[in-house]
Amino acid sequence: MKQVALGIDIGGTNTAIGVVDRDGNVLYEKKPQLTTPQKKENPQGSEVKSEELMAAFIKDITSEIKSAIDTVMQINPDIEVVGIGIGAPNGNYYTGTIEYAPNLPFVGVINFAQRIQAEFPNLKHVKLTNDANAAALGELVYGGGKGMKNFVMITLGTGLGSGIIVNGDLVYGADGFAGEVGHTIIEPGGRVCGCGALGHLEAYCSATGMKRTVYELLAKYNNTESVLAEVPYNEMTSKIVFDAAEAGDALAKEVFEVTGELLGRGLADTVHHLSPEAIFLFGGPVAAGEYIFKPTKESMERHLLPIFRNKVKILPSELKAGSAAIIGASALVWKELEKN
Amino acid sequence: MKQVALGIDIGGTNTAIGVVDRDGNVLYEKKPQLTTPQKKENPQGSEVKSEELMAAFIKDITSEIKSAIDTVMQINPDIEVVGIGIGAPNGNYYTGTIEYAPNLPFVGVINFAQRIQAEFPNLKHVKLTNDANAAALGELVYGGGKGMKNFVMITLGTGLGSGIIVNGDLVYGADGFAGEVGHTIIEPGGRVCGCGALGHLEAYCSATGMKRTVYELLAKYNNTESVLAEVPYNEMTSKIVFDAAEAGDALAKEVFEVTGELLGRGLADTVHHLSPEAIFLFGGPVAAGEYIFKPTKESMERHLLPIFRNKVKILPSELKAGSAAIIGASALVWKELEKN
Repeated sequence: MKQVALGIDIGGTNTAIGVVDRDGNVLYEKKPQLTTPQKKENPQGSEVKSEELMAAFIKDITSEIKSAIDTVMQINPDIEVVGIGIGAPNGNYYTGTIEYAPNLPFVGVINFAQRIQAEFPNLKHVKLTNDANAAALGELVYGGGKGMKNFVMITLGTGLGSGIIVNGDLVYGADGFAGEVGHTIIEPGGRVCGCGALGHLEAYCSATGMKRTVYELLAKYNNTESVLAEVPYNEMTSKIVFDAAEAGDALAKEVFEVTGELLGRGLADTVHHLSPEAIFLFGGPVAAGEYIFKPTKESMERHLLPIFRNKVKILPSELKAGSAAIIGASALVWKELEKN
Repeated sequence: MKQVALGIDIGGTNTAIGVVDRDGNVLYEKKPQLTTPQKKENPQGSEVKSEELMAAFIKDITSEIKSAIDTVMQINPDIEVVGIGIGAPNGNYYTGTIEYAPNLPFVGVINFAQRIQAEFPNLKHVKLTNDANAAALGELVYGGGKGMKNFVMITLGTGLGSGIIVNGDLVYGADGFAGEVGHTIIEPGGRVCGCGALGHLEAYCSATGMKRTVYELLAKYNNTESVLAEVPYNEMTSKIVFDAAEAGDALAKEVFEVTGELLGRGLADTVHHLSPEAIFLFGGPVAAGEYIFKPTKESMERHLLPIFRNKVKILPSELKAGSAAIIGASALVWKELEKN
């Protein structure tokens, strides 16, 4: 009997569903992904509409889960589904609820895990957390964090997500929402964060943050020579900055230096809290390799107390970029299995 | 048979030794305290001298422990000593070593717990950590943190120490040194910290930090009316600032507001990492009550993501000021007993 876990990742645009084995192999992945109900479908924040969208969403997911299990069983009938792990914005591990997620059309607190559990009453483990926490568990269960007791996962995307592992388990905190390192202050009174507050780490150190740095530097130097000066704001990506740096563009290189300087400073604050063995970086900007790792590492070391220097590794995540969200979510299940 | 634990706190000036029961009652406390070997006794950082001072120090402590046990047994012969807990600067819980402590005359890494253990081979639990971690354990075992699973202890003194409780146990991190929140950056490029780096939380939010704020504000306003303008820098204390505020001194009140604003901002960063149930404040400045708690709480709430607001309590430590160090150190023993 081969044990497998379902992984579900609810993103702002799409919802990914897959079946993952204990070694992190994705046995099935729904393509194309399900469309997540959109914020614009409930512009007034109506509770009735919220419930209507949620009921349809649960129905869609349930049907996709059943079809995923069927597909996997056709290949290998000797399979046991041990549970469902869900990554969701503002996902609360303790209660299984999605709470006031700013980019989803659902109103208030949604009993998401409970509603999925009701569709699959025989499954013992239906658990939910946010996507960055799920990624950290993925790194712990299948990735570079295997065998580590204390590490931090940083996901660099539109924002900066984080998941904290202490004594071999995820830190959920008193309310289930711990691990929001992206919203620590790195520049008091600085850039406006997506959350509305000023100077947060994710406003500087994320794919979006790097984009902002490009145009800040272009404006600072009035640099008309950089190839980045030819790209509209809304088309800029960390991939474009990386390619420009590879081609020798000085401003593109400075973008990585500035990003690494600030990320290293922020990570030093995290080390001063937690003294992890390693910090894993995940996401688009990580593809830039040493362009981002070198200045981040140098800045972190410079900002650490001597007692912490040359101890903390900064490593690229070992989760496969394409299916990391599903893999991370599925890791919740194996972690529960280990606890129970 | 009544179980008791020894608590030893090694400070830069004195070393406190006491006997504490499971409820946190101090049954015996050495008065006057032992003098800690002084940095100036080994100005060259000689290894030979370091070992000489350490050998004498171990001998003194051993003799004082024996005398403490004898004294307690004279009152109640039916006593079992279950272990020795030690709070020490740069104390490493995992190895029991004191490592490169900047204010002690000892060179390099000292096997402190092991050497004490060698003097008391029958004791199962001889454990060591730094003083702020010990204080956090004290709060967990005997104080306001009893029954809590996730909280943070902040000690405000010459510096700002911290101890972090996650899932009911202290966070030691990968190397044994976690919990240095005082050295997170609150003002990039700001005040010089005791450690030499710039802008650390403890350079602003500690008894010393408040003193610095007094003179920064006096200079800012050229305020000659404040009673604080009559006090030399080297005589200023948080008690003097509190008394001035109580007497209506506007500058003294502003010192608390500035301190609370920055402390609240720093604590928001900590909440964004850990989402604790409560943050306990300990130390001299805490005696100022609402003068410090109100602006700290207000600033923290203002700097939190909405999801964390109105959840995290900021509370005064319930450890008795005079014997908190001994009590905290002794808590290490009960925590070990619980684990084994």
